[in-house]
Amino acid sequence: MTTPHVTTQPSAAKAAVALLALALATAAFAAPEVHEFTLGNGLKVLVKPDRRAPVVVSQVWYKVGSSYETEGLTGISHMLEHMMFKGTESLGPGKFSRIVAAEGGRENAFTGQDYTAYFQSLASDRLEVSLRLEADRMANLLLRDEDFIKEREVVTEERRLRTEDQPESLTYETFQAMAYQTSPYRHPVIGWMSDIEHYSLDDLKGWYRRWYAPNNATLVVVGDVDPPAVRALAERYFGPLKPAAVQSPKPRPEVEQVGLRRVVVEAPAKLPYLLFGYKAPTAATRPEPWEPYALDVLAAILGGDESSRLQSRLVRGEEVAADVGVSYDPYDRMTTLFTISAVPAQGRSMDDLEAGVVEEVRRLREEPVLAAELDKVKTQVVAADVYQLDSVFAQAMRLGRLETVGLGWRTADEYVPRVRAVTPEQVQAVARKYLREEALTMARLKPLPLSSPVARASAPAAIEGGRHAR
Amino acid sequence: MTTPHVTTQPSAAKAAVALLALALATAAFAAPEVHEFTLGNGLKVLVKPDRRAPVVVSQVWYKVGSSYETEGLTGISHMLEHMMFKGTESLGPGKFSRIVAAEGGRENAFTGQDYTAYFQSLASDRLEVSLRLEADRMANLLLRDEDFIKEREVVTEERRLRTEDQPESLTYETFQAMAYQTSPYRHPVIGWMSDIEHYSLDDLKGWYRRWYAPNNATLVVVGDVDPPAVRALAERYFGPLKPAAVQSPKPRPEVEQVGLRRVVVEAPAKLPYLLFGYKAPTAATRPEPWEPYALDVLAAILGGDESSRLQSRLVRGEEVAADVGVSYDPYDRMTTLFTISAVPAQGRSMDDLEAGVVEEVRRLREEPVLAAELDKVKTQVVAADVYQLDSVFAQAMRLGRLETVGLGWRTADEYVPRVRAVTPEQVQAVARKYLREEALTMARLKPLPLSSPVARASAPAAIEGGRHAR
Repeated sequence: MTTPHVTTQPSAAKAAVALLALALATAAFAAPEVHEFTLGNGLKVLVKPDRRAPVVVSQVWYKVGSSYETEGLTGISHMLEHMMFKGTESLGPGKFSRIVAAEGGRENAFTGQDYTAYFQSLASDRLEVSLRLEADRMANLLLRDEDFIKEREVVTEERRLRTEDQPESLTYETFQAMAYQTSPYRHPVIGWMSDIEHYSLDDLKGWYRRWYAPNNATLVVVGDVDPPAVRALAERYFGPLKPAAVQSPKPRPEVEQVGLRRVVVEAPAKLPYLLFGYKAPTAATRPEPWEPYALDVLAAILGGDESSRLQSRLVRGEEVAADVGVSYDPYDRMTTLFTISAVPAQGRSMDDLEAGVVEEVRRLREEPVLAAELDKVKTQVVAADVYQLDSVFAQAMRLGRLETVGLGWRTADEYVPRVRAVTPEQVQAVARKYLREEALTMARLKPLPLSSPVARASAPAAIEGGRHAR
Repeated sequence: MTTPHVTTQPSAAKAAVALLALALATAAFAAPEVHEFTLGNGLKVLVKPDRRAPVVVSQVWYKVGSSYETEGLTGISHMLEHMMFKGTESLGPGKFSRIVAAEGGRENAFTGQDYTAYFQSLASDRLEVSLRLEADRMANLLLRDEDFIKEREVVTEERRLRTEDQPESLTYETFQAMAYQTSPYRHPVIGWMSDIEHYSLDDLKGWYRRWYAPNNATLVVVGDVDPPAVRALAERYFGPLKPAAVQSPKPRPEVEQVGLRRVVVEAPAKLPYLLFGYKAPTAATRPEPWEPYALDVLAAILGGDESSRLQSRLVRGEEVAADVGVSYDPYDRMTTLFTISAVPAQGRSMDDLEAGVVEEVRRLREEPVLAAELDKVKTQVVAADVYQLDSVFAQAMRLGRLETVGLGWRTADEYVPRVRAVTPEQVQAVARKYLREEALTMARLKPLPLSSPVARASAPAAIEGGRHAR
């Protein structure tokens, strides 16, 4: 079973703006109403009808993830996600997945910094299967020692393949731990190895009892369904569950960073790797409301697509970089990182690469972006957003995520107008305010020879592609 | 009330080797037997008669300190130490201290990474007062909301004066948080400000119930006392207390560091400040048994006294440093830092200073220390140890500390022979093994103008001297 976990690792998601015209054409589909209601036990339910195909996506989102964890128990949310497939009082281990498969559905789960979520994609007339099974494991999970011991091995192996043996992941993990001083975002979603090795069954039982309850969850259903019918099913299966006294975790705000940080990771690797991370606000940390959207546009200007600045100037122009990526998520629950990643071109030094990135950041701080460039980028960003929402799965993701981080699903409707309203002055303002050296952490992967024992134990290439992606 | 907290911050302790001849002369006093016994409820009692003066030091050591804490609750051990002076079911707030003072005694407490300890110094015929009061507050502490709210203010103010407004402390705190990736030593003993501000009375009650019990404590009595009489008193006052089910915290070993780390702290300050920290083992982490002692000798070679290498070469010779310090503690409970701190001489750059330190470390790795230098340093180290033990307080500290970190008080007897046995090859071996760039974290304090608001709110100079010292 693959139960991948989501992190904020730089991804190529922003590059998915290819089908521009098609995406814009589908905008009409993205607008239907969301039906929201809350059961007596506190379960929030969001239903969004989308009748383009006779399918339905059902997701259950829990307000718990790695940023709710403390030292010694890092990764426990992810471990519990694995255990959620081990059966309930009425259902044997692995039975859940077999039932969904027998119904022709797909299902899986993912754990992030801010959430743990479970989903099924089914023919729309099979939604009941999903709700029955999810309600069952929300309350009746059986946590057995034998399953636990085996699954803990699976998770340590997952960590070994995806982090220990992946030099870029290892670098990213160390980078994150250095960039955040007090925020729980400093811990990896999968957890530190020693913590994984020392989980007890009681830890899992405690975590399950503490966070898995209808009043700490959101059910999201998107597809070819009628809201009243979904409501009836939700009442039938989730309605009888008891709410729990969910206590919020202690706030752990990030201490203000007041100086540059640099970290080197020496590991067997083929290529060096460079990371820049600037502390940045998100919609959830309540900065000026336009700031997260200006940062989002800024990320696209720097690294959105082939015509973005880092691509056109560092990869193609100066040929100092073989690859670059920019990542920023306006919907993280807490102060986040505006991240730039880069791999040097063959024969070019890390110092040259770093200087190239620094120069592009300097320009953004000092020179306002031209209206034409800004308009082009905004069109891309809006298109990517609209394109993404062509998928019922992505629509459900958006709603569940926004609800779970505390912004509320209606924030989804603000995205396009907020992006469209970003001005050149705002782009420059956020560059000046946030892309400052005093708030910067830099990491460098310094490759060691691949013949070392660590490299020989490395994972097959197939794992690499799926790393930390959903 | 001053309840200072102990950290591993570089201190001038090593410099206290002045009275060499006198110290060696007192060696005869340092040898008397330690009487050890354990009460039925698990309280370990160590009694060391020392009849040179009619005084007694009584200390109660709890196996809890900042390294037992997790995020969100950092500093709670220190906060609880403050609350331990707020009275019990039978004793009003502040009464404890007034009784001890009325008996002509002194008393205080200290919290460190590995322990929380309370002590009284009294005329030896007043020992009963101390044991009666300590036993009372081990079990019957009253944690009242009004005291708590006030005392939390006291602790936030303490943090403001000793850390926020002290640029070197602030730099050290950030340095520590960067050097340790997963170890709880990354947190300051006093706790992060946000955590202090969010303590609840329930947090304190929970911490008190979890750790304050006879089976998690050691009573150390040193002075003009008879062991059987101390035993009778201990039985009388501590004997009736119930043991608790003390659960060990999760292990949180430090992840292996595989590359250089650098951090800059920009803060209003008069002078820059440079810190080097190399990851190093301690007697408690079970390296080769001679390694911690070779590192201790190495620390003295580098920075022990006026004739040490950094003093003679960087301060006096090249005049690149105005001040240097070296700190290493072989008795920390977990992997620790071998720390070098330095302030540049007027007109000399931080780069020059850094290069000077790097050069001295390189020499230690590459050239064996000469027998004459080693002998001189060993004499100093042994003398400092013996000198320190001239104080009954220091003797009690040593016993309590070793017992509390799990090494056992008998380790004290090994110190001098272990130091005497260190060879030039061993000094070079630990320099090569541990003083490596891949295991190094460097921090620089970059002074901002003192006219900024932070500097104006700064503490009076008198606080500075006492900062983080015991």
